[in-house]
Amino acid sequence: MAGNSFGQLFKLTTAGESHGPALVGILDGVPPGIELTEDDFVFDMDRRKPGTNRFTTQRQEDDRVRILSGVFEGKTTGTSLTLLVENTDQRSKDYSDIADKYRPGHADYTYDKKYGFRDYRGGGRSSARETAIRVAAGVVAKKILQQMFGTQIHAFVSQIGNIQADYDLENLDISFINSNDFFTTNAQAVEQFDALLREIKKEHDSIGAKVTVVATNVPVGLGEPVFERLDADIAHALMGINAAKGVEIGAGFASVAQKGSEHRDLMNREGFVSNNAGGILGGISTAQPIVAHVAFKPTSSIQLPGMTINRQGEEVEISTRGRHDPCVGIRAVPIVEAMLALVLVDHLMRDYAQNHLLPKQKI
Amino acid sequence: MAGNSFGQLFKLTTAGESHGPALVGILDGVPPGIELTEDDFVFDMDRRKPGTNRFTTQRQEDDRVRILSGVFEGKTTGTSLTLLVENTDQRSKDYSDIADKYRPGHADYTYDKKYGFRDYRGGGRSSARETAIRVAAGVVAKKILQQMFGTQIHAFVSQIGNIQADYDLENLDISFINSNDFFTTNAQAVEQFDALLREIKKEHDSIGAKVTVVATNVPVGLGEPVFERLDADIAHALMGINAAKGVEIGAGFASVAQKGSEHRDLMNREGFVSNNAGGILGGISTAQPIVAHVAFKPTSSIQLPGMTINRQGEEVEISTRGRHDPCVGIRAVPIVEAMLALVLVDHLMRDYAQNHLLPKQKI
Amino acid sequence: MAGNSFGQLFKLTTAGESHGPALVGILDGVPPGIELTEDDFVFDMDRRKPGTNRFTTQRQEDDRVRILSGVFEGKTTGTSLTLLVENTDQRSKDYSDIADKYRPGHADYTYDKKYGFRDYRGGGRSSARETAIRVAAGVVAKKILQQMFGTQIHAFVSQIGNIQADYDLENLDISFINSNDFFTTNAQAVEQFDALLREIKKEHDSIGAKVTVVATNVPVGLGEPVFERLDADIAHALMGINAAKGVEIGAGFASVAQKGSEHRDLMNREGFVSNNAGGILGGISTAQPIVAHVAFKPTSSIQLPGMTINRQGEEVEISTRGRHDPCVGIRAVPIVEAMLALVLVDHLMRDYAQNHLLPKQKI
Amino acid sequence: MAGNSFGQLFKLTTAGESHGPALVGILDGVPPGIELTEDDFVFDMDRRKPGTNRFTTQRQEDDRVRILSGVFEGKTTGTSLTLLVENTDQRSKDYSDIADKYRPGHADYTYDKKYGFRDYRGGGRSSARETAIRVAAGVVAKKILQQMFGTQIHAFVSQIGNIQADYDLENLDISFINSNDFFTTNAQAVEQFDALLREIKKEHDSIGAKVTVVATNVPVGLGEPVFERLDADIAHALMGINAAKGVEIGAGFASVAQKGSEHRDLMNREGFVSNNAGGILGGISTAQPIVAHVAFKPTSSIQLPGMTINRQGEEVEISTRGRHDPCVGIRAVPIVEAMLALVLVDHLMRDYAQNHLLPKQKI
Repeated sequence: MAGNSFGQLFKLTTAGESHGPALVGILDGVPPGIELTEDDFVFDMDRRKPGTNRFTTQRQEDDRVRILSGVFEGKTTGTSLTLLVENTDQRSKDYSDIADKYRPGHADYTYDKKYGFRDYRGGGRSSARETAIRVAAGVVAKKILQQMFGTQIHAFVSQIGNIQADYDLENLDISFINSNDFFTTNAQAVEQFDALLREIKKEHDSIGAKVTVVATNVPVGLGEPVFERLDADIAHALMGINAAKGVEIGAGFASVAQKGSEHRDLMNREGFVSNNAGGILGGISTAQPIVAHVAFKPTSSIQLPGMTINRQGEEVEISTRGRHDPCVGIRAVPIVEAMLALVLVDHLMRDYAQNHLLPKQKI
Repeated sequence: MAGNSFGQLFKLTTAGESHGPALVGILDGVPPGIELTEDDFVFDMDRRKPGTNRFTTQRQEDDRVRILSGVFEGKTTGTSLTLLVENTDQRSKDYSDIADKYRPGHADYTYDKKYGFRDYRGGGRSSARETAIRVAAGVVAKKILQQMFGTQIHAFVSQIGNIQADYDLENLDISFINSNDFFTTNAQAVEQFDALLREIKKEHDSIGAKVTVVATNVPVGLGEPVFERLDADIAHALMGINAAKGVEIGAGFASVAQKGSEHRDLMNREGFVSNNAGGILGGISTAQPIVAHVAFKPTSSIQLPGMTINRQGEEVEISTRGRHDPCVGIRAVPIVEAMLALVLVDHLMRDYAQNHLLPKQKI
Repeated sequence: MAGNSFGQLFKLTTAGESHGPALVGILDGVPPGIELTEDDFVFDMDRRKPGTNRFTTQRQEDDRVRILSGVFEGKTTGTSLTLLVENTDQRSKDYSDIADKYRPGHADYTYDKKYGFRDYRGGGRSSARETAIRVAAGVVAKKILQQMFGTQIHAFVSQIGNIQADYDLENLDISFINSNDFFTTNAQAVEQFDALLREIKKEHDSIGAKVTVVATNVPVGLGEPVFERLDADIAHALMGINAAKGVEIGAGFASVAQKGSEHRDLMNREGFVSNNAGGILGGISTAQPIVAHVAFKPTSSIQLPGMTINRQGEEVEISTRGRHDPCVGIRAVPIVEAMLALVLVDHLMRDYAQNHLLPKQKI
Repeated sequence: MAGNSFGQLFKLTTAGESHGPALVGILDGVPPGIELTEDDFVFDMDRRKPGTNRFTTQRQEDDRVRILSGVFEGKTTGTSLTLLVENTDQRSKDYSDIADKYRPGHADYTYDKKYGFRDYRGGGRSSARETAIRVAAGVVAKKILQQMFGTQIHAFVSQIGNIQADYDLENLDISFINSNDFFTTNAQAVEQFDALLREIKKEHDSIGAKVTVVATNVPVGLGEPVFERLDADIAHALMGINAAKGVEIGAGFASVAQKGSEHRDLMNREGFVSNNAGGILGGISTAQPIVAHVAFKPTSSIQLPGMTINRQGEEVEISTRGRHDPCVGIRAVPIVEAMLALVLVDHLMRDYAQNHLLPKQKI
């Protein structure tokens, strides 16, 4: 199937390039009767927005979400919802010299080979600008989850370079996370990340990051064996974010060095006593918090010159000027939340359709 | 959509429980004219088969694949292909005492909560027995890839516990890998893994593993932005294997600590000079080798007793007897290959449909 | 997507050729807890079975449905259900002389052109033999509908050639319909159809038929605008049956000559006062009976010789011997019921997923 | 899956209500390199546009299509294409008195029952206004077909009320069809339809119509057995148009009264000698012209008063004022073409993906 749709029952279809007139998303399958206004999008769009702190792109976009359909008298109608974000700060001239050169680490080369030519302005469709619509759709998904089960989804930056932020998943200070420049968990991490990023900027270089996300009050039973397991679909959602290179559920790669007696989460009458599973067993949610981690590579657009080729196959040097984050992982925080929320609503609907039609029969 | 199908144009649909009469797979979208016999499946089925070495389950299955449709006079006809594997060694009695108890680390609890009751014999549908059909389908996918582009897919065990196997992706000794007990890369690793596994067995415990997979001669241009990127779909495929807890593409989680100048793969006229990307940029294959890693948790079924609850919510102790691998990751090797192969063929078809209808226009 | 699956949440995937070892269906998305045994299939399989009366194919098949997965202790488990029907009466020799000639009105020519070669034995995958699995799956769908809403689906032959059977949709004698040779509504029609068919047989010719289907106690609200409207999906389901050439909903083609004041179904406090809509408005069920009609072309396999070409493009004469129905529409009755039932269950799940998650808010 | 998408590889997703700010369509899977400008849409949008002749709605819309993404330097890029049509003539006040009453023959009742409330202005999402985007997408589909195979798709009004227009499918005068008020085939039909419609208007009533569509130069081999047959998917596409009540392929319902010796299309070395099949055998295109007919019911919105109920279940009288076509079938002509074109491109891609990867092997 064509690749610009996400989800099956709660389905987001997107379009729009970095330097076109607008980004558009159609969200289909929204339950009717959800209160929704354009103001609901501001908080998350602001977290993703470039120019919010010193370490993210200085491009200025208003990123106001407009609702073009699917809402009547302040409530969703059950028909397809259109979300539109205009591109107001395009400055195409910044990108003119890369029309012909393949920027290392970018999709320039692969888009050209796949499609035969490309909109080279700012990456066109491959630009992370596209994620603005994902964040907008995530707002709707989070509202539904919150309204139905009190489900909360929060992401934060847990590592930049070799510096890890301490955190306790059961005691996250969400308002601290959402108000510091790095969307991280504590003041010490803020300080260390700040020092590291200053250095990276001075070197005209960039650095990778890890984002951790946790969802609480997730209902038991989400996930469709054997191929559309919840963990598989979360991996798909998170690895599909620009710059993602790895995804872990629960203990993740640490499981490789664990023994079975260590990893397995025992149960007592109050529930699970640990959460190495990250809230998912056999591909189905356990009702424990869902925990995932995503590795983001360092920004590919850096001023340090590097060797590449042009469309003619000739070797050329390139150094990206423009305005770019030294650490793309930071702005990924609301995108990670959005993608997890979209997966959860879709799975909620799928489970509901099959397993709640008839009263469950216990044998 | 219901969860027992994988892929869109090259689509595998499966059914069958651990202790039912048979496992069944229908593979739809197979190009016509591919030579295919039941003997083609033997090599891969044997690698997945329990009882192949001392460290995998001692359950004896013939695991002969029967073709029930889709092949005529030795060639695929383009119509849906049925693969059937009988369950010949079921021994239901081994599992009778777990009808009521939720085995820690297993899907017993989640299946019960999701569906209301479950086939408890050997895990039923949640058993890794199901992966036999995935391996069979992977054989067909690998034949197509090999025939069209000479694409080769090879997986191996790169780590067990804290022991890492050395390897050089450009010089893998495939016949060594496929003939040692651990499907690993070198004699030293075999020896170390053997010693570790003996100890783990003695402790009646189990251990995790990492499997690495590499695909060479992959055509450029596979992957459908922005949601069905090749990396996203590979993550979905590999995280969807039983016991998987993490997936990395290329540099994976190591990217977090990399600088942009380190991570980005520069190009010269001969191509890319490194492969931190793992063969995928912007979600599209670059024609470099695709490299991925999968973390497998330790086997949950161990003889060491542990606390759990039963269906009535009472605390009970459990210790799994039966025949179980101390390290499930080892048998996952052909499954990882199969899942990657299924993704690649599906994406090949998707790219072909959109981008090869018309001659590409270079501008 | 590959074409051998039907439905989205309640999804049937099929495989198998006329003269292969077996037909197979995997039904995914079955709600758990439905009582199901192999005996449940006998009644409908018998109605579809060749050799049941003098005017249907004399090929003898037992057509016993075997359940290979998805049922445990007599109830569905929510995991994928495998249905298998063996081909026990294949007699390949009957078909040997058509290996090279394209039978007029058959799919021989198009399969050859599409796939490059074909299983020519009895039509291979294009044979109506394939519909046996559809009927089996329809049995499961009808059980679910009956259990949830008391929904009943009944089809009958309403016309053969120019002879129309009288009927009153509100007073169908279902047991009469299901026990006469033509699955039609009254004794006079039986007599007339019998006389017509005797004549047609004598001429070694065949004749078309119309099948009418009605579903009662259908819940209001099924259908997903704007493309997966219930009427559109029913048209897809019924036109997809072998030999179908037309589908009508409610007044159908008679609407062309109706005035708006005639066609529109007025309402009073007891509901609709007529049913030109056939139970569907705006693509959504109204809770009135759903009424549809399907036109089936005359059997293409007749003994009257006709001109065709062979694979070499040479003109040749052909006359089909074998055992063939002079009127394929008769055996289509349970297939029409099955396809409608599959559509209704799928739409029930889809509506449920989106619109029953939250309590409906009346404004 | 949510219902606002059409097609699998060439996929249209739509949104927008009759009286919202705009209609939006995202067309995904468009091959790269197709020349496309906003002017390309004018001809078809004008044919669908209300107010074009005396017998269609007098609502004035400019219906200019804007391209918001997917085109760069005048050519499609292979990324998702956004089409937007603003609603410029909404006049909500016309509809204020129907907020509470269910208009007979409309979707008011079913939308209310399905979703719990609705955008009542002009039918909201259920309005035929939505088809503007289908027509726009059809323009792109027709360009692709024309460019690849010279495929031409033309629809016309073949019947209104009891008056049938004569036509010869092999000698249609397309420019006459597209320039007369009824999109019909000859001057006599124009005259008769005109007289009939004048009378119907005088009676404040409406009348049904039949639209016939023919596609020439369709490649052989399109259609995916056994469920996504080309005829089944065409039936889905055409029955999914607002007000459609019946679909025929080729001989359609006339097949019921045909004998096999009459219906089957014999072949000689120049091809088929007749076309009762309507260009499709076994669900696969034969390369003959594809011929289909669609029955459209009479407009439901008429001034003649009728009985209905309101949201409170009370009986009330209703008479629709507003501006409405007395015969909706007339404006359906470009919609029927668009839907057929969308189906053909999608099937072209599907066939290409599976059957053109490898050179076909003749045996």
